[in-house]
Amino acid sequence: MLIENIKSPADIKKMNPADLMALAAEIRNALLDKISKCGGHLSPNLGFVEATIALHYVFDSPKDKIVYDVSHQSYTHKILTGRAEAFINPDKYWSVTGYTEPCESEHDHFMVGHTSTSVSLALGLATARDIKGETGNVIAVIGDGSLSGGEAFEGLDNAGEYATNFIVVVNDNEMSIAENHGGLYASLAELRATQGKSENNYFKTLGFDYLYVERGNDIDSLIAAFKLVKDSTKPVVVHIHTLKGKGYSFAENAKEGFHWAAPFDIPTGVINWGNGESYGSILGDYLMKKIKADPKVVVIHSAVPAGIGFFADRRKEAGKQFIDVGIAEEHAVALASGLAKGGAKPVYSTHGTFIQRTYDQLSQDLCANNNPATLLITMSGADGMNDTTHLCIFDIPMMSNIPNLVYLCPTCVEEAIAMMDYAIDQTEHPMAIRIPNGVTHRNVEFDKDYSKLNTYKVDKCGNKVALIGLGSYYGLAEEAAAELAKSGIDATVINPRFATGIDRETLTGLCADHQVVVTLENGVIDGGFGEKIARFYGASDMKVLVKGLKKEFYDKVPYDKLMERNRLTPKQIAEDVNAALCSK
Amino acid sequence: MLIENIKSPADIKKMNPADLMALAAEIRNALLDKISKCGGHLSPNLGFVEATIALHYVFDSPKDKIVYDVSHQSYTHKILTGRAEAFINPDKYWSVTGYTEPCESEHDHFMVGHTSTSVSLALGLATARDIKGETGNVIAVIGDGSLSGGEAFEGLDNAGEYATNFIVVVNDNEMSIAENHGGLYASLAELRATQGKSENNYFKTLGFDYLYVERGNDIDSLIAAFKLVKDSTKPVVVHIHTLKGKGYSFAENAKEGFHWAAPFDIPTGVINWGNGESYGSILGDYLMKKIKADPKVVVIHSAVPAGIGFFADRRKEAGKQFIDVGIAEEHAVALASGLAKGGAKPVYSTHGTFIQRTYDQLSQDLCANNNPATLLITMSGADGMNDTTHLCIFDIPMMSNIPNLVYLCPTCVEEAIAMMDYAIDQTEHPMAIRIPNGVTHRNVEFDKDYSKLNTYKVDKCGNKVALIGLGSYYGLAEEAAAELAKSGIDATVINPRFATGIDRETLTGLCADHQVVVTLENGVIDGGFGEKIARFYGASDMKVLVKGLKKEFYDKVPYDKLMERNRLTPKQIAEDVNAALCSK
Repeated sequence: MLIENIKSPADIKKMNPADLMALAAEIRNALLDKISKCGGHLSPNLGFVEATIALHYVFDSPKDKIVYDVSHQSYTHKILTGRAEAFINPDKYWSVTGYTEPCESEHDHFMVGHTSTSVSLALGLATARDIKGETGNVIAVIGDGSLSGGEAFEGLDNAGEYATNFIVVVNDNEMSIAENHGGLYASLAELRATQGKSENNYFKTLGFDYLYVERGNDIDSLIAAFKLVKDSTKPVVVHIHTLKGKGYSFAENAKEGFHWAAPFDIPTGVINWGNGESYGSILGDYLMKKIKADPKVVVIHSAVPAGIGFFADRRKEAGKQFIDVGIAEEHAVALASGLAKGGAKPVYSTHGTFIQRTYDQLSQDLCANNNPATLLITMSGADGMNDTTHLCIFDIPMMSNIPNLVYLCPTCVEEAIAMMDYAIDQTEHPMAIRIPNGVTHRNVEFDKDYSKLNTYKVDKCGNKVALIGLGSYYGLAEEAAAELAKSGIDATVINPRFATGIDRETLTGLCADHQVVVTLENGVIDGGFGEKIARFYGASDMKVLVKGLKKEFYDKVPYDKLMERNRLTPKQIAEDVNAALCSK
Repeated sequence: MLIENIKSPADIKKMNPADLMALAAEIRNALLDKISKCGGHLSPNLGFVEATIALHYVFDSPKDKIVYDVSHQSYTHKILTGRAEAFINPDKYWSVTGYTEPCESEHDHFMVGHTSTSVSLALGLATARDIKGETGNVIAVIGDGSLSGGEAFEGLDNAGEYATNFIVVVNDNEMSIAENHGGLYASLAELRATQGKSENNYFKTLGFDYLYVERGNDIDSLIAAFKLVKDSTKPVVVHIHTLKGKGYSFAENAKEGFHWAAPFDIPTGVINWGNGESYGSILGDYLMKKIKADPKVVVIHSAVPAGIGFFADRRKEAGKQFIDVGIAEEHAVALASGLAKGGAKPVYSTHGTFIQRTYDQLSQDLCANNNPATLLITMSGADGMNDTTHLCIFDIPMMSNIPNLVYLCPTCVEEAIAMMDYAIDQTEHPMAIRIPNGVTHRNVEFDKDYSKLNTYKVDKCGNKVALIGLGSYYGLAEEAAAELAKSGIDATVINPRFATGIDRETLTGLCADHQVVVTLENGVIDGGFGEKIARFYGASDMKVLVKGLKKEFYDKVPYDKLMERNRLTPKQIAEDVNAALCSK
């Protein structure tokens, strides 16, 4: 096996073309094997094996610096830079992350995970190189739909006026996560059709030199192209045409489904997405029903529509009432604001980690105009846990402090539906709904009127201690109440429903016969919901325990550890409550 | 006078070409007159007089909808849509805002003020129109450097794949706020040079049809062009070449200086920027000194470098150590992160309202990577007050809840310099410094070591009551202390310096002989600094009064009223403190 002997990029520079091809085949097998067991970004990595080999063959990393966009296609890079074990030895599978990670290797320059960032980050490295009078190539790798993100454009546009070495490899696999969107992709298709000769060239309009490589999975072609641009003294784009999912027929044929795959069976291509209910299908069914019932409803997603159950068939069925804007969250929010202003009923859904990509549009385009768009913020991972770059724990501080926005946090499926029903049809405010990751049902009738803002629901009336459980932490409030009952405390349990404000009446009412209020939210506590409660009670005698996650970039912390570290187990909550009671 | 009789766009549709020209001249005079007295966006409006007349002559607003980017060039639009009085009658000068405002007129569709938003917002209106089966034209106006913002690209790219009426008027005045930046502007120049015939056409690469108008200040040419695209069934760009500042020689010659002007003397062109010290010149001198002393220092700005004293001469002097990325805040932050990673010392400065345009890059590109870039967040207006779209009051909640970021708040010039000195040279964290608007000096020696995070300074040791005055509200803490002294209270005064964390030791120490802690911050309190203090003391007996601004989109509220409404006068603070003490 060649792959076992690759300790650094130097090891591939000695290889002959046949060996490089053999190595590519071994890498592809290793990727397939590991990802079929652990899950991961399959198709993007399969498509970029040869290009990565060619990059490391031609350039001299880490002196030459390669910056991967999203870095979900950096598995081969990891294999070639001393981390092959993590892909061929099952015991070491979890020794590396799924993205580039400077702590792992000097060949990784940034921890990334969101799209459209590589050009700007790499341009920073190139500028630092020039300022310091150093030499070397800087290469930004981008593709897989990332070009539609505004940050990528800003970076390319700025880079286009530099007179220095700066190489951008555009990995064009004809796909975003779903199919590509945006006028740009039509002109990329034109470039492919003309072997790069079309005058209609986006990169040239931004000031780049340009080179096209049709056979983007052919190592020799790639090596020849990279040698041509190596040590270039002007910004240049190398546009390579690759096959997403290359080498695994199921992935070649179902590119969207295998973009990121849960563990799967290699011979049959059956992915084990797990059983049981998921919000993906619940939201898909619900939104499709709304689309059919009301021609004004327009569902918007930014590149991952499968996340809300909008697979290709459903997208087709929805027709003009479904818009995939591609990776373009800023545009999506502004578009939704415009739609609402124009009298449509837009519902934009994105992940909790990706809503971060559009703060100013939320504030200015949407909320300052107070247009009644609905946002569905979907969570992933227990308590928003995931890779550091995909945490869903910052949305409450980011969103809930913007005026006019109403951020609703349902405790279960039925409440989520009640909230969506209300939000989509109302015309008073922009409304966001925080869709939990885990599916919970509660056998309760839900109010369908959320017009009286910031009204909490007291679900269980007790005394002494009140537990306010926001959204998916409502269950935790109930568990903590059960734990407190063991020490004879009959705690009040409150579903606050709104993350964006204070229910003065309910909270003031608690002062009569409560001494301790506990807030529970599954996000960072800094700037979050509980601090508003602490502020409200600041001048009173009420003791407030604000519970949630400490402000930190967590890295895939297991659920149990996360809860324990943040003193969030029912037992710890009860302990802290009892301590607070004792101090009275 | 023709201008006096314009009550709605219908009134100009009857005019002959000579009258339209005469009207343009009257409008230009009115603009010059009003802005010379009130201040405002002079050059953008002077350049867009004819285009606005032609738009309203050809299209039928409000059925046809015109959406202005930034909307700082919408003064003529206001004149033509029933608001002429606000420009010709000095008593009515303040009856309209400087931006489009739906509350003022059905011809205004959005309240805007940040750049690069018009395409997405207008596309929302066009899509709503189509969904509802309505007709009419939708026109997005964009220019003045806004094309470099990622949101504009995302909008254009998405629009490029629609098969519907959607007209984008690109107002190309060869300028951003400072000179244009980005490779794109070279290809716009090529389009101008070839009368729109160059194949190197950015808009076509995104799927737009394209029309060029060389004489963008000639009403007849503009009318002819707009008639050609009216009722177009495909997205089309009308690229018009205008003269920024047209008709006022001082503005034509000093386009950057007159982009937004304070009141000025028409005959001499002398702008009254006010006397006294400003942070613009302080920062300019300081940063230039750093640039000269250390070749690794790189100052970055996004399109308004004059705000930190980097006028043309200084930009030239700084050479490669100054980068104006144009309007591209996302790129600016990622570039800074890359520069820091590469060993340079980047200092990116932008306004408190524009830092909002780059949340995800702060979180992911910069802070998750913990790269030691320095950000200078400059404030405008007393207490961040300004037009609703330019408030500097949301930055603390937005930024201070991102892990790894250190947000320092200096109380005066000397402390700001000490903080910058530390931040630029350290290599531990990304650091932001909140530069106040008003210039204050304090006769105090400042610590130059901020390595021990979240250490507050107790400047005056008292008892019973502690006032924690963040940044520019430090003076208010001192005033409130003086007020409290009148009722015999010797209050402690604390300069917390750090907005991003809690000084447990100092705060715990207060418990011994203090009963009330007051926090003061000039920003919205929701998600801000004071709430962290309230949370910290939540389970203790300490009473905490969190003071700052109520979460709200304020509109140019006068300083006195703002303070009073938020119970922030020294007298009100003392009253609230005394009430809290009594309730003990």
